[in-house]
Amino acid sequence: MRIDIISALPELIAPTLNQSIIGRASKSNVVNILFHSLKDYGLGKNNQIDDYQYGGGAGMVLRVEPIFTIINQLKSERNYDEIIYMSPDGETLNQGICNHMSTLKNIIILCGHYKGIDHRIREALITREISIGDYVLTGGELGAAILCDAVVRLIPGAMSDESSALSDSFQDNLLAPPVYTRPEIYDGRQVPSILLSGDDKRISEWREEQAYQRTQQLRPDLLK
Amino acid sequence: MRIDIISALPELIAPTLNQSIIGRASKSNVVNILFHSLKDYGLGKNNQIDDYQYGGGAGMVLRVEPIFTIINQLKSERNYDEIIYMSPDGETLNQGICNHMSTLKNIIILCGHYKGIDHRIREALITREISIGDYVLTGGELGAAILCDAVVRLIPGAMSDESSALSDSFQDNLLAPPVYTRPEIYDGRQVPSILLSGDDKRISEWREEQAYQRTQQLRPDLLK
Repeated sequence: MRIDIISALPELIAPTLNQSIIGRASKSNVVNILFHSLKDYGLGKNNQIDDYQYGGGAGMVLRVEPIFTIINQLKSERNYDEIIYMSPDGETLNQGICNHMSTLKNIIILCGHYKGIDHRIREALITREISIGDYVLTGGELGAAILCDAVVRLIPGAMSDESSALSDSFQDNLLAPPVYTRPEIYDGRQVPSILLSGDDKRISEWREEQAYQRTQQLRPDLLK
Repeated sequence: MRIDIISALPELIAPTLNQSIIGRASKSNVVNILFHSLKDYGLGKNNQIDDYQYGGGAGMVLRVEPIFTIINQLKSERNYDEIIYMSPDGETLNQGICNHMSTLKNIIILCGHYKGIDHRIREALITREISIGDYVLTGGELGAAILCDAVVRLIPGAMSDESSALSDSFQDNLLAPPVYTRPEIYDGRQVPSILLSGDDKRISEWREEQAYQRTQQLRPDLLK
């Protein structure tokens, strides 16, 4: 999978995405993440990328020209499955979208910043708008990092132990059951004895029951 | 505001949070973000922080001892309003929670990693569990970065222009209206003429109407 990230501040997330599981996946060519700085396509001698919004009001807006230039250039080089804009207005990200995206070949992720991007870019170039949740961030960069992290970990070969992803929360519309590790007793608190029983069948049943109970208690909406 | 972030991999997000608006807020003492590496509190000569999960299964679990040590140490130094664990099981983050959190004085954010943390930590120490959305990440670090970014930008003095945050999506349960900047015509696409009219009252009405229409079309659930 190839992911092109376009941003006014790629240095905000490049260090994050070059580490951990995602960094390992990049090194093993499971994914190829490329960062494009809008300033490299800015206008005039100051490499201008934003301007005041028409109609007045606080906050700068990213201009059309640098974004059209870089996206059209990328599109001339290969086909993209999606050109995504990270926006609080977008479709809310969920595990199903992540599962689907992990099967794509080439995607572009455009990060807004400041007050957003000129609306004509959204009308002309963007194929999908995604929000990571109902809250506002200083920019789309962290949202793009979230999307990359959630998607890349699902690509076969990205995680050292693939069965781990399958038992995560949400993969069956259930929250994960509680997990415990050594020591058996800490500060008077004991690990549930069933987990020490060695009886795989009963342990598996206990986990299913716990997952169901936790979901019913904490997120009954997932069971509907 | 003081935010203590506890993580197995603080280097994943420290560079991100030391930049942009959040970095500026740190430098001007609007917020003080401190990173604590679990490995500094690890066990034995290898500074062990995780172990296999009881009952079998893929994925490592963060152990109780290092986390109890660091949290109890922090609690002995000052009072904390919340001790937050980032988890897909948690309460789903929204703008209302961010608004509330921006008024707190001291919080701890604990990031899980690998398969999660020993459940006894959640029972004994955590006061609030927060999820940034219904998807699974490689760790809680990016979730913690999202929470910090969404909260810190709301603290008075964090943003260069405070009125900008008030006109964001979600602050009135409405998505933001479209924004435009120069040039007036690009690739045959024109900025709505109302925004060039100079008539502040009509512009304001147009924006309200657009915000309402976009919300009705894209996120009718927000209007309920």
